[in-house]
Amino acid sequence: MTEMARVFVPGHVTGFFTVDRRSEPTRTGSRGAGIALSEGVTITVRPAEESAVFLDGERTLMDAVHRVLDALDVQAHVRAVTDLPLGAGFGVSGATALGAALAVNRVFDRRLSVRELTTIAHGAEVQAGTGLGDVVAQARGGVPIRLEPGGPQHNVLDGVSAAGRVEYLTLGERSTAEVIEGDTETLTTAGERALSSLVAEPTVEQFMRASRQFSREASLLTEGVRATIMDVTDAGGDAAMAMLGETVFALGSGLTDAGYDATVTTVDSAGARLVA
Amino acid sequence: MTEMARVFVPGHVTGFFTVDRRSEPTRTGSRGAGIALSEGVTITVRPAEESAVFLDGERTLMDAVHRVLDALDVQAHVRAVTDLPLGAGFGVSGATALGAALAVNRVFDRRLSVRELTTIAHGAEVQAGTGLGDVVAQARGGVPIRLEPGGPQHNVLDGVSAAGRVEYLTLGERSTAEVIEGDTETLTTAGERALSSLVAEPTVEQFMRASRQFSREASLLTEGVRATIMDVTDAGGDAAMAMLGETVFALGSGLTDAGYDATVTTVDSAGARLVA
Repeated sequence: MTEMARVFVPGHVTGFFTVDRRSEPTRTGSRGAGIALSEGVTITVRPAEESAVFLDGERTLMDAVHRVLDALDVQAHVRAVTDLPLGAGFGVSGATALGAALAVNRVFDRRLSVRELTTIAHGAEVQAGTGLGDVVAQARGGVPIRLEPGGPQHNVLDGVSAAGRVEYLTLGERSTAEVIEGDTETLTTAGERALSSLVAEPTVEQFMRASRQFSREASLLTEGVRATIMDVTDAGGDAAMAMLGETVFALGSGLTDAGYDATVTTVDSAGARLVA
Repeated sequence: MTEMARVFVPGHVTGFFTVDRRSEPTRTGSRGAGIALSEGVTITVRPAEESAVFLDGERTLMDAVHRVLDALDVQAHVRAVTDLPLGAGFGVSGATALGAALAVNRVFDRRLSVRELTTIAHGAEVQAGTGLGDVVAQARGGVPIRLEPGGPQHNVLDGVSAAGRVEYLTLGERSTAEVIEGDTETLTTAGERALSSLVAEPTVEQFMRASRQFSREASLLTEGVRATIMDVTDAGGDAAMAMLGETVFALGSGLTDAGYDATVTTVDSAGARLVA
């Protein structure tokens, strides 16, 4: 057992998605696509008498993280630090669950593979009801296309070959659980249409178009987000809504060019990784 | 069409492998495991009247790269720059083929996904006879475990969760084609044994042990490499032989601690990526 381990997990904005519920959590998940971001979550794990999770220094309850600790049968302190907005569609809960799994494996010498650890974090996130596709996307990095749902034993991932600057702006919070536990038929139909169009033309431009269309068809687009996307378009840029949050993301300097005070980040090509 | 695109592809040292020949190049490949390195190859592609490949400024013939250009139906200049030793087991040909595929996709707006581009590069490398598993490992990054052979449509990848310093020292060259086109039955049996042991315990320490055992069982260990590995072991370190080259790689500062003037690099967690 080592004293501590640290893991970085990229944030992940989802552009469009489906909800695919199966009887097992590791088969449950979503298809869709998103962008992994260099702005992410740094997770530090240390052995402890009693498990506790801290987010930016404050003790918090993160069901998915506690489930990871239980699955790996350890007592530990998990400290997550991030500059990402919470509840705004950046996959902070998924990142913390995945980071905890990778760090616990190191600290407690659990000898599990990347797929096994990702499976545990994905299953925990699904059971907690806080996400369906962020974990597997965050494990991969880049611009993941989730062709088939579920954990690594069941899903099929591809990616858009892309790099470069991404900007985002958060207008407010939104509960993921509220949406994915409601009626998701319309949403899934829209997600499937978006996915088909991206598979036919896997470019970032098509990803942004498909994401915009999805947010309209799935009736998730809010007035504030819609207006901001329009402003970016009018300034010659390319923006879409992050699922699920009141967040707009844009390629390049799209939001800045439209006069917004946006956060600047880049595509993170590496995915979740131990920090040496 | 843009003017140019640049891609970085990590080097890749293979610790052990099998040879799995099938009728199709995209099903042909190898199982095994290795380490992707932050020391790699930077590939720049520009449109040209007539295709040509340059390695560190010198015009060269790289069959796998020309096959990639043909498959993507373009005329281009491909310039690869690397500090890695050539013909020494670092997968420079695979890196250049994969980098060319990703860069051509960008320059000529080919609109192919990461899996499609990796498939093209893997098939080209197999047909050129210069490698069987480097391309898919270099596309993934980290410490890839190749559970099933072939391109991305057919293979199954996992990984050891690991980070940190890696050192290497090259004693001489060796032809990959000579080994993989010979009798590979003994080698494949040894590779399967090594793979089973790593799957049972996916740690870097077990990867190094399995790699050392493989190099002996497959009769690929040379006297110079053997002596260097022993020196590292005597100094309390952990080293193995890179397949296929007269190269020793070590975890942490293993070679330096044993008094060798080794090159220092790290595990590259990202895999092949466009340089923005």
